[in-house]
Amino acid sequence: MNNDWIYHAPAPLDREAMAAAEARQGQLTKPSGSLGRLERLAVTLAGLQGSERPAMERVAITVFAADHGVAAEGISAFPQEVTTAMIANFANGGAAISVLAAELGASLEVVNAGALTAAPALPGVLDRRIAAGTANFCEQPAMDEAQLLQALALGREAVERAYTDGAQLFIGGEMGIGNTTPATALAAAMLGKPPAELAGPGTGLNAEGVAYKAQVIARAIELHREALDKPLELLRRLGGFEIAALCGAAIAAAQRGLPLLVDGYISSVAALVALRINPEIAPWLLLSHASAEPGHAAVVAAIGGQPLLDLQMRLGEGSGAAVTVPLLRLACALHNNMATFAEAGVASGA
Amino acid sequence: MNNDWIYHAPAPLDREAMAAAEARQGQLTKPSGSLGRLERLAVTLAGLQGSERPAMERVAITVFAADHGVAAEGISAFPQEVTTAMIANFANGGAAISVLAAELGASLEVVNAGALTAAPALPGVLDRRIAAGTANFCEQPAMDEAQLLQALALGREAVERAYTDGAQLFIGGEMGIGNTTPATALAAAMLGKPPAELAGPGTGLNAEGVAYKAQVIARAIELHREALDKPLELLRRLGGFEIAALCGAAIAAAQRGLPLLVDGYISSVAALVALRINPEIAPWLLLSHASAEPGHAAVVAAIGGQPLLDLQMRLGEGSGAAVTVPLLRLACALHNNMATFAEAGVASGA
Repeated sequence: MNNDWIYHAPAPLDREAMAAAEARQGQLTKPSGSLGRLERLAVTLAGLQGSERPAMERVAITVFAADHGVAAEGISAFPQEVTTAMIANFANGGAAISVLAAELGASLEVVNAGALTAAPALPGVLDRRIAAGTANFCEQPAMDEAQLLQALALGREAVERAYTDGAQLFIGGEMGIGNTTPATALAAAMLGKPPAELAGPGTGLNAEGVAYKAQVIARAIELHREALDKPLELLRRLGGFEIAALCGAAIAAAQRGLPLLVDGYISSVAALVALRINPEIAPWLLLSHASAEPGHAAVVAAIGGQPLLDLQMRLGEGSGAAVTVPLLRLACALHNNMATFAEAGVASGA
Repeated sequence: MNNDWIYHAPAPLDREAMAAAEARQGQLTKPSGSLGRLERLAVTLAGLQGSERPAMERVAITVFAADHGVAAEGISAFPQEVTTAMIANFANGGAAISVLAAELGASLEVVNAGALTAAPALPGVLDRRIAAGTANFCEQPAMDEAQLLQALALGREAVERAYTDGAQLFIGGEMGIGNTTPATALAAAMLGKPPAELAGPGTGLNAEGVAYKAQVIARAIELHREALDKPLELLRRLGGFEIAALCGAAIAAAQRGLPLLVDGYISSVAALVALRINPEIAPWLLLSHASAEPGHAAVVAAIGGQPLLDLQMRLGEGSGAAVTVPLLRLACALHNNMATFAEAGVASGA
């Protein structure tokens, strides 16, 4: 296994479909621009899907779950066994993303990329455990090179499954107790910002806990400072299996021509790593929601663009992206099904 | 016909259901608060619907259409005949709100409250024409007293139909060429702000057109200055049939215990008039989206609360509210269908 694939070019946009969609928008029975971001979204999706009439029926969601060695530093409000317990909850339909997937008619699979314990053998759960959690990056790199490649490949394989199943949109989610810590470490390292500026409560730390978490991150960044300008190496040293899988999924989705809807903080950090590795994939990454986690805004600014929703969510699992799916669907429906001025016999504006 | 009903008390909130819903939220398998506004929305809906498990399946949309005498002042980019043409487009399924209603499985009816010409006889269109448009409020009150009462009653009747049909949510939309002008006149009069601060492009005026529109509004406010502290009288003098109908609908929905999802600029102004008439209805009015029309933010601030969406839409028709419906539905689904920590055997936070 090698990592050559992550540098390959993404699929091209279909500029002709975008121009046709743009022209269609101008003919629909509404003042030009009055559907705001839903108009631009339809045109973007036309370019990504290569069709004047984009569609968003078949949505594939993969949640990558893993544990983190840095949890030993006491940076989370929840115990690590919750990661594995939540894998079962995803599969049993009780988690937020399970409920959302069911409501949306989206497929949902859970990839155990490296929880502390083996995944329960449940339908919809793929056991792809790379290790029993990463190493504690306050002491050594979180992953070795082979593990990093494995994790990136897990993302690509999930995208391949979605693509084969005819998905029109891919959502990657994550679950991993403590994973705002590696995400914040990566963000601080990539953006050159102090960890204290980006660190947040995650699942529910108090102010003291957040300050301590920032110190842990600062220590790790100091330890791994030689990798600061090497995104792939940073991912290996400071990331997590699920974060690397999300990074691989972002790159692979762009290469497959499958739009990827980026979830909140963790997923956005993974997307930013992916962009630093392969900047041309940018058009394929759609931002969904603004996370309440304080570091998200800086990561979004570095990615560029603006999330569609701000509901003060901070759950992960892909839940913010899933909540955004109806907006994409309605944007497509409006674009495809509204009458033109000519069809409706309505006079267009002066 | 008299207007006594508009002062009647709204239905009470069910505090017990809210407390039960709040308690349930704390037991679901997620960090407390991590679903952000979706959590608070579920609790609010529980209080409005009187059920620990709120539901949002049956949504009723009524679009009120009317013309405006002030169009004679040349304040719109579109000709007035578009109002009637759009009524046909609503009924024929080609308008934005028609597409959205179909996607949402919501009912849609159009009430011709006073377009210049008779509504086409189409299924889903109710001919309730009060007059061939309002009078030009730059010269005289837009409505006489009987017309105002008729318009308010149209809103109440629509709510009654929705209630009888078992709706769980009411959305009022509007269509009326030129109607950002009466809406802005009402907003400026109620908020004591200069029209130039609130006036916007509506369907597509340029800067010169917006400045002229602000002058027209300033002239009207001067003419009707004696009514400035009387919201009902302001509505009669500066409103429109569809705006008064939306105001009546907001009051009636609260009285019927039917949550009403407020659309954008015009609908928010109507909601603000309703609140000034009957302040106790406030809990029943849910804000949906932030309109791109510049006066909307001031109106929203006066109503209180925060719209769920900001997609830079400025179409009206109820379209912004309709786009918000999936968020309400997902909030209910998450609230009702997620597993509790106990059910899932997941450890809750430290």
